[in-house]
Amino acid sequence: MVKQRKYVVKKQFQGVPKRDDFEIVETELPPIKNGEILIKTEWISVDPYQRAYNSRYPVPYDQFGYQVSLVLESKDPRYPEGSRVVCHQGWCDHSVVNTSEGGATLGLSAVYKLPDLKGLSNSLGIGAIGMPGATAYFGFLELCQPKAGETVVVTGAAGAVGSIVGQIAKIKGCTVIGFAGSDDKVEWLEKELGFDKAFNYKTVDVLKDLKEAAPKGVDCYFDNVGGEISSQIISQMNLFGRVAVCGSISAYNDMLNPPKASIIQPSIVMKQLKIEGFIVSRWLSRWPEAFADLTKWAKSGQLKTREHVTEGFDKIYDAFVGMLAGENTGKAVVKV
Amino acid sequence: MVKQRKYVVKKQFQGVPKRDDFEIVETELPPIKNGEILIKTEWISVDPYQRAYNSRYPVPYDQFGYQVSLVLESKDPRYPEGSRVVCHQGWCDHSVVNTSEGGATLGLSAVYKLPDLKGLSNSLGIGAIGMPGATAYFGFLELCQPKAGETVVVTGAAGAVGSIVGQIAKIKGCTVIGFAGSDDKVEWLEKELGFDKAFNYKTVDVLKDLKEAAPKGVDCYFDNVGGEISSQIISQMNLFGRVAVCGSISAYNDMLNPPKASIIQPSIVMKQLKIEGFIVSRWLSRWPEAFADLTKWAKSGQLKTREHVTEGFDKIYDAFVGMLAGENTGKAVVKV
Repeated sequence: MVKQRKYVVKKQFQGVPKRDDFEIVETELPPIKNGEILIKTEWISVDPYQRAYNSRYPVPYDQFGYQVSLVLESKDPRYPEGSRVVCHQGWCDHSVVNTSEGGATLGLSAVYKLPDLKGLSNSLGIGAIGMPGATAYFGFLELCQPKAGETVVVTGAAGAVGSIVGQIAKIKGCTVIGFAGSDDKVEWLEKELGFDKAFNYKTVDVLKDLKEAAPKGVDCYFDNVGGEISSQIISQMNLFGRVAVCGSISAYNDMLNPPKASIIQPSIVMKQLKIEGFIVSRWLSRWPEAFADLTKWAKSGQLKTREHVTEGFDKIYDAFVGMLAGENTGKAVVKV
Repeated sequence: MVKQRKYVVKKQFQGVPKRDDFEIVETELPPIKNGEILIKTEWISVDPYQRAYNSRYPVPYDQFGYQVSLVLESKDPRYPEGSRVVCHQGWCDHSVVNTSEGGATLGLSAVYKLPDLKGLSNSLGIGAIGMPGATAYFGFLELCQPKAGETVVVTGAAGAVGSIVGQIAKIKGCTVIGFAGSDDKVEWLEKELGFDKAFNYKTVDVLKDLKEAAPKGVDCYFDNVGGEISSQIISQMNLFGRVAVCGSISAYNDMLNPPKASIIQPSIVMKQLKIEGFIVSRWLSRWPEAFADLTKWAKSGQLKTREHVTEGFDKIYDAFVGMLAGENTGKAVVKV
């Protein structure tokens, strides 16, 4: 018998999730049946949607999330023992997966073989070459439809998704301006990732500095945050500008009472903007396309991946609230 | 020589436009040249965009606007003497039009023959079968892509555009809910126009009443107003809902300082909404399609047109501020 330790959410989050909203529960896993695999978690992902979707589930529920795992035992020939998979089994150290069901929470899941990462770290399978990478790739390319020479703004620019969006925009020949939450992040975006300009949104005058950095206006905006900064960026958009709304992390700690900000409808009308929200599962069948390009770019050095690694199963909570507070630069992952 | 009286905007509007922001100027019109026509204005349109676009022009400028006019003298065989045209010459009683230029303000203009209205009032050429009708038709059908059985919400529902949107939605088999600004308007929408439900936004609890009236959620929202009511409606939208943003009249009196409202990004993401703003000149070459359908529906009785008529050239200012204050039910026009 294999034991499983898992994080169970036993209280609805109020504001910032608290340590005792979770309980670590130990159970015994059953023997696997045909079509099942037993896996050992190696990397666990902490992501903003784990906060945002909390109110959808009655407590207690098993905390959901992506992971890269090693197959210990297999009764599905597609996933042999010793191979690795990406799945959505949540914050647990071992689990049994019915490979036909996936861990079908949220429509976000799927069990799939870890893509061939060409020698890159397996942890990228839940980061730049996983769900966050696909989010950046499809959200930006499909909804923003960027053209070379256009000006792109990204908020949450130093995060798992934003940092990839900005780099894809550079690969596509755009001018890229990022907003992030610390001077260190700004330096990383400009010096390492090649953003044309980055700002610490906590210390700048967004409107004034954006007007200077984007004298021709903004054509595409990849929005991770919502709130007043989004209203200000949207007010600077050009005719027929496109906005991909990926997240609104500014509102996640109180989804039922979103904050107020300057309304964006005047800009939407006058500039005939198109604003579209998305969840990346919309393109689930096409994720391999994204992974192929992202792997190629990462190998060639055009796409830099950075991870904020926390070690230890017992530290997932800390990694999670740290990510929500913006402590990570790049993708926040936990090494189990 | 023919004299022209015209309204000139001599001061930028501050808040609600004031009577002495305008001056009525009298000038002599020159003789017409080849490719020109001399016209006498019969109907003048007052519309919200005349407020919204004010800040775009340095003062003094001739007040722009649509009109239905009689051709008094013609040096363009396409527009013979005695025929009628629709053009964008503004608030004047006579004018000389270069028919190749149109009155090309704003890209909204064009000179075109008054469509064959099959005996309906010529005033519809600046209303239900004019720019506002085309706005309703293309904005709703192209951007909302309504399907029979879906639930559609319209704000500014008793206005020139909103009242047509709701009726087109009924023609397309949708359930239609309207928000307007008085009990009389609500009664007109429900009893005359066939809206399934209408509300006086000034007296209802928008969120509570909308949840009751749209128990299956909202699929399409045609937004004329912006502001908190739009945030509340958008919070009730279904997965892959579509929003056409036509106007944000709630913000027009102070475009540089738009009001604040609950942010809509959480709904945009979670429901994967598409929100698109538009100006109807985008479909200028296709306006005749709209006019053909709208005329057919008006003749058959499926589309009811109501006008709020003010008489007299000297009363245009009053008609304009009355429309901005929501005093009109249906299209506000001035009979010269």
